[in-house]
Amino acid sequence: MKINNQHFRTIWLKPGDSGIVQIIDQRKLPFEFIIEELHNLGEMSVAIKDMHVRGAGLIGAAAGYGMYLASLEAGDITFKDEVFKSGKLLKATRPTAVNLQWAVNRHLELLRNCISLEEFRDKSLHLANAIADEDAAMCRSIGDHGLKVIENLSKKKLGETVNILTHCNAGWLAFTDYGSATAPIYLAHDKGIKVHVWVDETRPRNQGARLTAWELGSHGVPHTVIPDNAGGHLMQHGLVDIVITGADRVTNSGDAANKIGTYLKALAAKDNQVPFYVALPSSTFDWAMTDGIREIPIEQRDAHEMKFMEGVLQDGSIAEIQIIPDRHAVENYGFDVTPARLITGLITERGICQANQESIRKLFTEKY
Amino acid sequence: MKINNQHFRTIWLKPGDSGIVQIIDQRKLPFEFIIEELHNLGEMSVAIKDMHVRGAGLIGAAAGYGMYLASLEAGDITFKDEVFKSGKLLKATRPTAVNLQWAVNRHLELLRNCISLEEFRDKSLHLANAIADEDAAMCRSIGDHGLKVIENLSKKKLGETVNILTHCNAGWLAFTDYGSATAPIYLAHDKGIKVHVWVDETRPRNQGARLTAWELGSHGVPHTVIPDNAGGHLMQHGLVDIVITGADRVTNSGDAANKIGTYLKALAAKDNQVPFYVALPSSTFDWAMTDGIREIPIEQRDAHEMKFMEGVLQDGSIAEIQIIPDRHAVENYGFDVTPARLITGLITERGICQANQESIRKLFTEKY
Repeated sequence: MKINNQHFRTIWLKPGDSGIVQIIDQRKLPFEFIIEELHNLGEMSVAIKDMHVRGAGLIGAAAGYGMYLASLEAGDITFKDEVFKSGKLLKATRPTAVNLQWAVNRHLELLRNCISLEEFRDKSLHLANAIADEDAAMCRSIGDHGLKVIENLSKKKLGETVNILTHCNAGWLAFTDYGSATAPIYLAHDKGIKVHVWVDETRPRNQGARLTAWELGSHGVPHTVIPDNAGGHLMQHGLVDIVITGADRVTNSGDAANKIGTYLKALAAKDNQVPFYVALPSSTFDWAMTDGIREIPIEQRDAHEMKFMEGVLQDGSIAEIQIIPDRHAVENYGFDVTPARLITGLITERGICQANQESIRKLFTEKY
Repeated sequence: MKINNQHFRTIWLKPGDSGIVQIIDQRKLPFEFIIEELHNLGEMSVAIKDMHVRGAGLIGAAAGYGMYLASLEAGDITFKDEVFKSGKLLKATRPTAVNLQWAVNRHLELLRNCISLEEFRDKSLHLANAIADEDAAMCRSIGDHGLKVIENLSKKKLGETVNILTHCNAGWLAFTDYGSATAPIYLAHDKGIKVHVWVDETRPRNQGARLTAWELGSHGVPHTVIPDNAGGHLMQHGLVDIVITGADRVTNSGDAANKIGTYLKALAAKDNQVPFYVALPSSTFDWAMTDGIREIPIEQRDAHEMKFMEGVLQDGSIAEIQIIPDRHAVENYGFDVTPARLITGLITERGICQANQESIRKLFTEKY
């Protein structure tokens, strides 16, 4: 998407130097916009581990480029062993990231059939680019399908602004481009449909206020940051036409785990007859699970995320302050599960289906 | 309630010097605990206006003591005019605070029938103390009624810990003692019933994380601070036995306006069969209103509350950081309305009733 009218992805090869990968270092957003150059596997591992890049799709793409950087460092004879070790190292940077494992495995498969380092370098570069492109294309498809829903709402409102509420960051910063929940919004905006986004601040990591607001603003999409507490009130007063969120894991029956607080918004949407959509690439489905609330394990994250807050001091420097004293216990569950009964539809790259086994099965017959 | 085993109210006359009122300056809590001395009407006005003291009950008590301080400054002959002007000045410090108007008016009524300044000073001191005591007694009554609900839950759980979720600060810091939502909790804890409180952080002003956690901790009540987003997840997993919140305004049919986000918790409670109680002194009823969502005006508060955050830097100094850049629009609705259908019961100083006209009428016959 765009930053000040210039097109960007979240990761790319440096123009004119295919030995350097460039990324948007997301850690200091929105306070600082930094493009970081990564020259080797070690730097890419740090970038993934320390969350210079984050988000399922982007982590996959970063791992792909990481394997390519590893190939540039490998020796002619020992390259198979070396690249295999590099893959192991990459996989350990974010052990629960499914896309990371998958991207590394695709490179290892490639490696098996290569007879020279040169061949692997060429094919690895090609594969890394392909993984990034596929991710963008998949998000684009999600966008195309979701766009129709927004178009219909716009028509219903006779062209008046469609107000969309989103939670957390399922934006292009989490993928290589477009995002999942944001893809329909960007496509609608670019098509001239009037949209406005209510951006949930998304405590405790504030990915809404920090990342979603930044990317929407950079692309020029009208938006307003609100406390996570506000969505119910807005829906009661007709100020939300549709909710679109991303998902971290969706069961075969349509229960959706997403950033903590998503469930509360889904309840409010149901109570006020506001359509509630979850946008996801099909890789987010966990085909083996049915009952999301019972089966999806919910990660407890570090208390630091709750107790500290980062921002800008009056002198312009970035600082972290402690907002909850150490003497208080805190709990920091990363996700909650929205039951399928509260979800109007799932927007996937193959199309939109209802959040139930029958409807999901129709779209993904081969998985059943 | 207690701070390090010493009993405190939020406002009191300085022992040994009836010309000085002492308050807990709540602005820097929980980072600094400051007892402030107020010597005259001007200082009390600043304390109310700049929120050294806040909360309906406490503002009323502060206004009462403010009128008494005004009497100490008045001249023998002109005292009636002077005190009347002081009342006007006090009323203007927080124009929408009903208890403030009421406390000032009680003093002005008194003033009308006094024939000497000396008489007014005596009676005003007596009245100021009475207003503070009445507030504490009313909260205590709310506590006694609510205690029974917690006791029943404790019995049902065979003495296991009762987990109570609360939102914002309807604690003793908002009154002279006990609080409204917290009163049943303090009484249960003091009685030896095992309780644990989930304290919603309560964005954007963080009154939960800053004030409720502080007062529960100071009194020794086990508690855990959680993001506002977490309550639904906790309820889905049986980790909440009851929700108790305060209210800013309750209609004659039981719709309750309270800090933004309360409605979302009520929806989650309903969805998970968790009892949801609103605790309130009867002065919080707005007898003229019926439909809360349509009729209760919702204040939009300053964007600063959303965009900035106060906390402690690593060197121990208190600092404010900007967490949302100025280029983003924000909306900051102060309250939302929880429809009566989601409320299990209203805990008042007269007893507990259901959130509907018939049940409220039975408790407050004279209002209908």
